[in-house]
Amino acid sequence: MSPSSQPDYTQFPHYNITFPAPYVAHVEINRPKKLNAFYEPMWLELGAIFRLLSHDPSVRSIVLSGAGDRAFTAGLDVQAASSNGALTPAAAGIDAARKATEIRRHIETFQHEISAVEKCEKPVICVLHGFAFGLAIDLSCACDIRLCARDTRFAVREVEIGLAADIGTLSRLPHANVAMSWVKDVCLTARDFDADEALRVGFVSGVFDDKQTALGKAVDMARLIASKSPVAVQGTKEVLNYSRDHTVVEGLNYVKVWNAAMLQSQDVVDAMTAGLQKRKPTFSKL
Amino acid sequence: MSPSSQPDYTQFPHYNITFPAPYVAHVEINRPKKLNAFYEPMWLELGAIFRLLSHDPSVRSIVLSGAGDRAFTAGLDVQAASSNGALTPAAAGIDAARKATEIRRHIETFQHEISAVEKCEKPVICVLHGFAFGLAIDLSCACDIRLCARDTRFAVREVEIGLAADIGTLSRLPHANVAMSWVKDVCLTARDFDADEALRVGFVSGVFDDKQTALGKAVDMARLIASKSPVAVQGTKEVLNYSRDHTVVEGLNYVKVWNAAMLQSQDVVDAMTAGLQKRKPTFSKL
Amino acid sequence: MSPSSQPDYTQFPHYNITFPAPYVAHVEINRPKKLNAFYEPMWLELGAIFRLLSHDPSVRSIVLSGAGDRAFTAGLDVQAASSNGALTPAAAGIDAARKATEIRRHIETFQHEISAVEKCEKPVICVLHGFAFGLAIDLSCACDIRLCARDTRFAVREVEIGLAADIGTLSRLPHANVAMSWVKDVCLTARDFDADEALRVGFVSGVFDDKQTALGKAVDMARLIASKSPVAVQGTKEVLNYSRDHTVVEGLNYVKVWNAAMLQSQDVVDAMTAGLQKRKPTFSKL
Amino acid sequence: MSPSSQPDYTQFPHYNITFPAPYVAHVEINRPKKLNAFYEPMWLELGAIFRLLSHDPSVRSIVLSGAGDRAFTAGLDVQAASSNGALTPAAAGIDAARKATEIRRHIETFQHEISAVEKCEKPVICVLHGFAFGLAIDLSCACDIRLCARDTRFAVREVEIGLAADIGTLSRLPHANVAMSWVKDVCLTARDFDADEALRVGFVSGVFDDKQTALGKAVDMARLIASKSPVAVQGTKEVLNYSRDHTVVEGLNYVKVWNAAMLQSQDVVDAMTAGLQKRKPTFSKL
Amino acid sequence: MSPSSQPDYTQFPHYNITFPAPYVAHVEINRPKKLNAFYEPMWLELGAIFRLLSHDPSVRSIVLSGAGDRAFTAGLDVQAASSNGALTPAAAGIDAARKATEIRRHIETFQHEISAVEKCEKPVICVLHGFAFGLAIDLSCACDIRLCARDTRFAVREVEIGLAADIGTLSRLPHANVAMSWVKDVCLTARDFDADEALRVGFVSGVFDDKQTALGKAVDMARLIASKSPVAVQGTKEVLNYSRDHTVVEGLNYVKVWNAAMLQSQDVVDAMTAGLQKRKPTFSKL
Amino acid sequence: MSPSSQPDYTQFPHYNITFPAPYVAHVEINRPKKLNAFYEPMWLELGAIFRLLSHDPSVRSIVLSGAGDRAFTAGLDVQAASSNGALTPAAAGIDAARKATEIRRHIETFQHEISAVEKCEKPVICVLHGFAFGLAIDLSCACDIRLCARDTRFAVREVEIGLAADIGTLSRLPHANVAMSWVKDVCLTARDFDADEALRVGFVSGVFDDKQTALGKAVDMARLIASKSPVAVQGTKEVLNYSRDHTVVEGLNYVKVWNAAMLQSQDVVDAMTAGLQKRKPTFSKL
Repeated sequence: MSPSSQPDYTQFPHYNITFPAPYVAHVEINRPKKLNAFYEPMWLELGAIFRLLSHDPSVRSIVLSGAGDRAFTAGLDVQAASSNGALTPAAAGIDAARKATEIRRHIETFQHEISAVEKCEKPVICVLHGFAFGLAIDLSCACDIRLCARDTRFAVREVEIGLAADIGTLSRLPHANVAMSWVKDVCLTARDFDADEALRVGFVSGVFDDKQTALGKAVDMARLIASKSPVAVQGTKEVLNYSRDHTVVEGLNYVKVWNAAMLQSQDVVDAMTAGLQKRKPTFSKL
Repeated sequence: MSPSSQPDYTQFPHYNITFPAPYVAHVEINRPKKLNAFYEPMWLELGAIFRLLSHDPSVRSIVLSGAGDRAFTAGLDVQAASSNGALTPAAAGIDAARKATEIRRHIETFQHEISAVEKCEKPVICVLHGFAFGLAIDLSCACDIRLCARDTRFAVREVEIGLAADIGTLSRLPHANVAMSWVKDVCLTARDFDADEALRVGFVSGVFDDKQTALGKAVDMARLIASKSPVAVQGTKEVLNYSRDHTVVEGLNYVKVWNAAMLQSQDVVDAMTAGLQKRKPTFSKL
Repeated sequence: MSPSSQPDYTQFPHYNITFPAPYVAHVEINRPKKLNAFYEPMWLELGAIFRLLSHDPSVRSIVLSGAGDRAFTAGLDVQAASSNGALTPAAAGIDAARKATEIRRHIETFQHEISAVEKCEKPVICVLHGFAFGLAIDLSCACDIRLCARDTRFAVREVEIGLAADIGTLSRLPHANVAMSWVKDVCLTARDFDADEALRVGFVSGVFDDKQTALGKAVDMARLIASKSPVAVQGTKEVLNYSRDHTVVEGLNYVKVWNAAMLQSQDVVDAMTAGLQKRKPTFSKL
Repeated sequence: MSPSSQPDYTQFPHYNITFPAPYVAHVEINRPKKLNAFYEPMWLELGAIFRLLSHDPSVRSIVLSGAGDRAFTAGLDVQAASSNGALTPAAAGIDAARKATEIRRHIETFQHEISAVEKCEKPVICVLHGFAFGLAIDLSCACDIRLCARDTRFAVREVEIGLAADIGTLSRLPHANVAMSWVKDVCLTARDFDADEALRVGFVSGVFDDKQTALGKAVDMARLIASKSPVAVQGTKEVLNYSRDHTVVEGLNYVKVWNAAMLQSQDVVDAMTAGLQKRKPTFSKL
Repeated sequence: MSPSSQPDYTQFPHYNITFPAPYVAHVEINRPKKLNAFYEPMWLELGAIFRLLSHDPSVRSIVLSGAGDRAFTAGLDVQAASSNGALTPAAAGIDAARKATEIRRHIETFQHEISAVEKCEKPVICVLHGFAFGLAIDLSCACDIRLCARDTRFAVREVEIGLAADIGTLSRLPHANVAMSWVKDVCLTARDFDADEALRVGFVSGVFDDKQTALGKAVDMARLIASKSPVAVQGTKEVLNYSRDHTVVEGLNYVKVWNAAMLQSQDVVDAMTAGLQKRKPTFSKL
Repeated sequence: MSPSSQPDYTQFPHYNITFPAPYVAHVEINRPKKLNAFYEPMWLELGAIFRLLSHDPSVRSIVLSGAGDRAFTAGLDVQAASSNGALTPAAAGIDAARKATEIRRHIETFQHEISAVEKCEKPVICVLHGFAFGLAIDLSCACDIRLCARDTRFAVREVEIGLAADIGTLSRLPHANVAMSWVKDVCLTARDFDADEALRVGFVSGVFDDKQTALGKAVDMARLIASKSPVAVQGTKEVLNYSRDHTVVEGLNYVKVWNAAMLQSQDVVDAMTAGLQKRKPTFSKL
């Protein structure tokens, strides 16, 4: 069912994918000359990468960052978008309903690719630095944990270009549990905010002196997570995301049904035995 | 369909309505001698005002504040409420079920009027100062952004008068993304809290030295918002409120359908063109 | 319908139950030699206690804490759990589906008992100190307000023993309105966090110098709550919990129907009269 | 709060409103020369009428039918709609986003007026006959009980004029508990169906030889309902509509809270006493 | 965890519990002199019985019927209810809010006991005959399959005694997928309906000549169900009930997680092997 | 964005895809020697086909049927499934949690492919005949309209092979608005039912003498649908499916936002003009 051989992670020209620690993958957005701005091939690749990582038994946690000194990503490559995509005017003879259908399909694909990060079974730690505008927020909202460098300049920029953000920011930010008064401030004004503000409101959970330090910290955290039972870790991500979207009673029922199978892992036995013996357990692949 | 002439905003005796900047309305609660305490005509006027503002094409953002030095609003005018309304005892011969029906209809109207602020298509920035008790919290929770003066004394006062708050505080505060342990503290004890505490927990997103400074800041923010595409701004408010109440998947679907129409605005073209030309765009009315 | 005589609170060997102030109950977990670690009889007793308190008219607010200097609770008594319960291996001849059924029923009971704290009609203030690991978090998440001593060491420990937390932490923490990036950090890494961090993110709403001070403060808060109308207080808890799990519109409708009956209390009259007379009201039992 | 004087039901030129039995109102759509086709003033009046009936204590059940021999209603007056409303082309210089805003507001008003029938606190029995096309289905879906004359010709006509029905049919029919395979057949093909088919699938619950017989039967049913406790009847409508839209567990909780007040009526005592005495009870106004 | 010894089913004076076929239990309501009318001890016993059956490995399907020739159950024993329970007037000095609290708790218990039938992990086939009024409908709605004798006289009687049905009928009937126009007719008029009508609308799925024939048929059906894999049968009940209350997407996700464990039963292997060998499989206890 | 060239429908060996009428596609399951039983390549192809059809502007409605005289489909090819897939035993050394993960991923893919039929933007009419077991029900539940030949033998067979149906039947059947008592009967007993029973309960909406007649009727219906505005038809499918899964209020809001764009089609103008001119309109591609 699942492929036994390692996926080929070199097939994605816009990303560097490395493995800095056991069971840890590092996905680096790699279009630094354009401030890592996104155009269509980049989000198609991104979705494909995270779908592969999701089922790859040799990966247990993931770090996502941007190449270069200047930007995690400056957001959508507006020039590319305006020559091809949802933002292009309708062709002659196309009425507004038909154009709407075209736009809807386009947004659906785009959302689907970014949501692959959230749907990935393994935790994803996002490391932001430099410019982190527009799509940077959509994308980082789909990650589980957000860390950043002190120089990061964040902005929910979409109203600047005449539109409500539609790739995830407005859908996920109200569920990131950061104060709604602040969320509306930054989404409606499109103003910049810095790392300290991001930390204070809880949008990021760690700020570090520079990108390298932040990346190092993220890899450490990923390594720590990867040292735990993958059954426990992946269940924790799944159940937290499910619970975010459901009532407490629904959440309790779901984790009960989930764990009916997942408590029957060798990991529980191994973890408890190792705990009693004061040593670190190892866990088989998942 | 929509009226072409400007609504008459002078018909509401309990409110001052002014236009301090282009496309910015300022609604001032105006019963300062009574600490801006509310009685029925005031909430009926409030709802009517915000329904007018909602569709008025010459308004793009709104500031809400209270007249006088002493109070945003001290809350419900209890004296008035106890002589007429839900808090009056049942008339002779009225059983508890019939009284309950009367109460239910009364609360429904009251909630409907306060909810007009949330349903208003334009963002509303609330500026609190002085006493901000009871209904002050219900009302400010229906606004998008909350700012305050340093002298503000907040309290969720309703348990002091023997009731669970029913005009919005208990329904909206858990979704304002301020810590629930704190929410329960202030709602169950009815204790005061000050501006610093309100900022720390995220109930407000800005504290300013005095009411005038806070108001000035709010008007600046409203002006900034009003300078953006109204299509983008109103879509952002709508989608954030929708997403707050729905799962991430539902939110993504909704913004996709919403933007299928709303990306077909002239604003996107104008904003992108102006962006490339490094000038400020102007947008036609909505 | 409801028993007129006082329940017997001395029948629960693992808990000390006292009444430190009028209408205030104090429930103390009492297995200090084992760091208040839980095994099955303890959670069965806990549920029974809170079901009694829920309908006891002489109780209006509750404090929950742990006996001894060292721990609120160190969590699940893993030794006991591994000899009897969901974590034991399946008996010979039991297939994974049948074992899953056994686990599901076990978790259901366990969740049901811990949820009795949340379902208790009276507010519960949790005071944490020392070790507060694993089940400590599940349990405190079911309380309304969390306070702690400065020496508290918190951890969502479950991934350490190979499982996703299934007794409440993962279901309730996303609704405690603490930043999700932080929630995922502590749930996925199982790392410790201290009182200051817990306060900063809003997991607790008060930190005090030591356990005794924290307990004293909790009893004061409980006393304050118990001095208010029990109709108002219990309605406030119910409506906040309902609203947390529903949209704003649903929450408004619910409080409207709830208050249709509950505004018809003598408490409203008494509270308003006392307010006008600048004296403290007293309220009859509920 | 509620007006003590009888509302003036003669102010609505497009409707005949009569009172054929104690506590029974009969609302007749009265534009027979145009086959009772709807244009904007008619739905505005309709909403106003049902909002009045909802709180009128002298009304306990309502019959809705159409004047003339030929049609309950032939639906939207397309000619009127195409000269003014959502179906008119955008004015020059109005982009598709702005036109969409105009359409959205127009549909919202239209839906709001038709939904007044469903929101009316009293049960509404719809009697269909002759042509019952398009809006006839939207409108009858907002009623509680549907009866018809044998000559009725039903059709969900909207796809014939190029649109998905947006005033209620598509939203309510899937919840009318008629087989979805049939619902999609009639909604996608826009074909006619007759009274027998409507009865067989459960869209109507009674077919009668002609309009007069059907009307007579409806008035009998309304009279029977009006002879029951209004507290019981209005609670039953409310709880059934709530339950239709919620899970079983939510529905049980809601009726519990609802009845906490509503069981405290004199009606329960009177109904039980009358039952023991084998006589018909009478109930005071609600 | 689960008791190894057979529960004692003789401890319930108001019920006869027999085992007419392998793995089949028959629960007979046994108060025929009172037409099987319910008073409080009866619903407390009912809940206890179905909680025992739910986990009893020697039971795989259940038939529920009423003793005597005259009634499945005539409903609530109104005489008993009016001397003790939610329908009694408030004691002197009890305000309407306190009485409401008492009523709410009473209804909660009553609902909890009847819901034990729905929550029972094994399918329950209800056999109705004779009078089936009021609570008879609440109770049968909590069963999975409804069969009846030709002489059954059904009625949703609650409005006759001045109240909206609050023990399940109004919450479950809209989800039984019988036409809502009919549901509202019988719930609002409280009229009788007979077996043919019940079959035509789908409230029952089988009508038989007399009670004995219906019972025989029910036992046959229960025997058939009990001959299948209990893992498959209990999963099917659970997933159908879950899906009834959730969207299709939620339902698909749930059955996926459910079956992740439940496909790992020996039953799948045994059933498929037996199928290939054209013999009946046997399944171990669950 | 959307491909301008016609997709290649000949690449799917297990299906015949033809175009029997303008804008009508006919998808025929083509493995008649195996009674059209499904194995993995078949559902992967099925999903791919319906994803292509969904966006193919030359297709407006679809008929789905099975090749050969004997079966629409006899369901899952159990032999294939037991040698490869969710029903295979775990490999040595794989614990139940890891096997569960494998199963979950397998079911997810399988569901995803079958759900492609429901997600297809165009209406799908299913024509059943002969054996229609197990997966036949899952698959037909994902279609919009179900017709059948008189010889059809239906069964929800899954409990026969030891499992709860997990590819759609149990999730969709409760929302097909067929009586739940009947749904549980057929799902729990796995018994056969015939065409008349299927029609009576509403599972199918038409029964025809033989497969050819049924197919002819389906093509006629598809042709009729394809003659309508594709904007109207696709909106109707989308809104009905959305409304099935949401409350009435949510459904009304959704269709309002949907139609804000979709009423701006040329189709409305063309349909109304053609209506006035008593001629058939033609519509441009979508």
